[in-house]
Order: sequence, then structure tokens, then C-alpha cells
Amino acid sequence: MKRSIGPRTLLQPNPVLIVGSYDQKGQANMMAVAWGGICCSKPPCAAISLRQATYTYGNIQHHKAFTINMPSTSFVKEADYVGIYSGKQENKFESLGLTPVKSDVVNAPYVEEFPVVLECEVLKVVEIGLHTQFIGEIKRHQSR
Amino acid sequence: MKRSIGPRTLLQPNPVLIVGSYDQKGQANMMAVAWGGICCSKPPCAAISLRQATYTYGNIQHHKAFTINMPSTSFVKEADYVGIYSGKQENKFESLGLTPVKSDVVNAPYVEEFPVVLECEVLKVVEIGLHTQFIGEIKRHQSR
Repeated sequence: MKRSIGPRTLLQPNPVLIVGSYDQKGQANMMAVAWGGICCSKPPCAAISLRQATYTYGNIQHHKAFTINMPSTSFVKEADYVGIYSGKQENKFESLGLTPVKSDVVNAPYVEEFPVVLECEVLKVVEIGLHTQFIGEIKRHQSR
Repeated sequence: MKRSIGPRTLLQPNPVLIVGSYDQKGQANMMAVAWGGICCSKPPCAAISLRQATYTYGNIQHHKAFTINMPSTSFVKEADYVGIYSGKQENKFESLGLTPVKSDVVNAPYVEEFPVVLECEVLKVVEIGLHTQFIGEIKRHQSR
């Protein structure tokens, strides 16, 4: 017998996704995104859900590109930090001493210190409701 | 220094999602879906990616509803099974001795024995490429 808790957005486990983008001045930004993942095999695509209010939303609309970075467990504090503070107020790469690297394949930065990155070019923008989904074609997967 | 492995669809961890639907004869089916998750807070939505070739694809296009079930670890074999065999050939609920329960809120069955279910009504269908994404509004979340 199950118990209803209403229409809630609960599903586990969730990967920790740190999304890299350039703002309109060309400054690198990153934010933690709770909801996203692979969504197509051909072309290989990943999706991320963002609210319009985020700094990253405007960045991706402008440059049509983003990176999805996965931190190792040693960066748990940094991953938390970039989910709390906004790039509107500060340069989070500088605040945390992390290194933005310009992708060779899309117009977005990735996080040098994090072990995995998917470099994505926007293929579709899906307006759902409070969240907008950016579907990006994965141009390259890098890891170490 | 990262190493490129090309445009690959790798991102971990992945939740194990078992999607329930009715076929056009009203028979309950379930399949394992590799890619999906929450994608919007208002309205609360979840997305799943399916190839057109799957039985579930036709079912959801017909009934505009599906459930996302999460098995406990004691059902790891069943979760594997429903990702291998197709509802075109067999009634997987019967093969596995699992119980389909008709949702009160959407026209789709959920798996009684699994501890968590999201009951979803199709809100958008996004054609991406080999995979189509069904975005469903979560009408109810049940767990035990």
C-alpha cells in the first residue's frame, strides 16, 4: 500500500551537474543544476532545466552553448556554493579558485578541476513552465 | 588534463525508471527507461526518452499517460528483465508475477510491488532524434 504525497518532484538518485556558460561580457560562470541528464542517443544529447530567473538562462539563450561538468567528491563544497550564489553578483570561478577553460568545440567554458565534462550546443529550447529545458547536442565528452 | 572520448552519452548516476503504460488493447506493460527525470517544478513534470520502436512509445502516444516506477534493490532482476523483453511479444507483468494497478489520476498502470511511483499525464512530446522525449505532468507521487 502506497501513500500519496501529492504531485511532488522527487526522484533519486540525481547526478550533480555543474553547468558552465559565458555571460554577455564573455565572463565564465557556473551553476549547479538539479535536473538534467542524457535524453537522446542520435544525435547524442543532454538536457538541463533552468528557471528564467537564473543568470545561466540568459547566458545560454545568448551563446546557444553550455557545458555539463561533474565534480568529484572532493569538490562537494564548491558544488554547493555554485548552487547558492549567482553569477549576477560575483565571478564564482574567482571566488572558488577554479579554472575556466574555453571549450574547443562549443562557445562555453568548462571546469578544469572537475573530472568529467559534456560540451553541448543548444539544439532545442523547450518552455515547460517555471522551468525551461535546454536540450544540447553533445559535441564532446571529456574525462580523466 | 582531460581525455576526449567523443560525443558520448555518459552521465552517472542514473536512476532506474520503470515506465508503466497501457497498450491499445488495455493491457498493462512496463519497460526500463535509461534516460529521464524531473524537468520542471511548476507544473511539476518528469521527462522520459523513448525510441519510436518501443512498444511503450505507441502506448503513450495513444493514451497520453504513463507512470514512472522505482523498484527497490530486491527487484533488480525484474528491472533488468523489463529492459530486455518487449511487450509486443509478452505480458511482462504476468511473466514476472508483478501486479499492475490502474492509477486513479491518469490512464496508466503502476507496479504495486515497487515502492515509488510518479503518475504522469503527457504535457509535451519533444522529437529530438532517435529518441523522443515525453514530458509528463506529475499528477501524484506515491511511495511507501
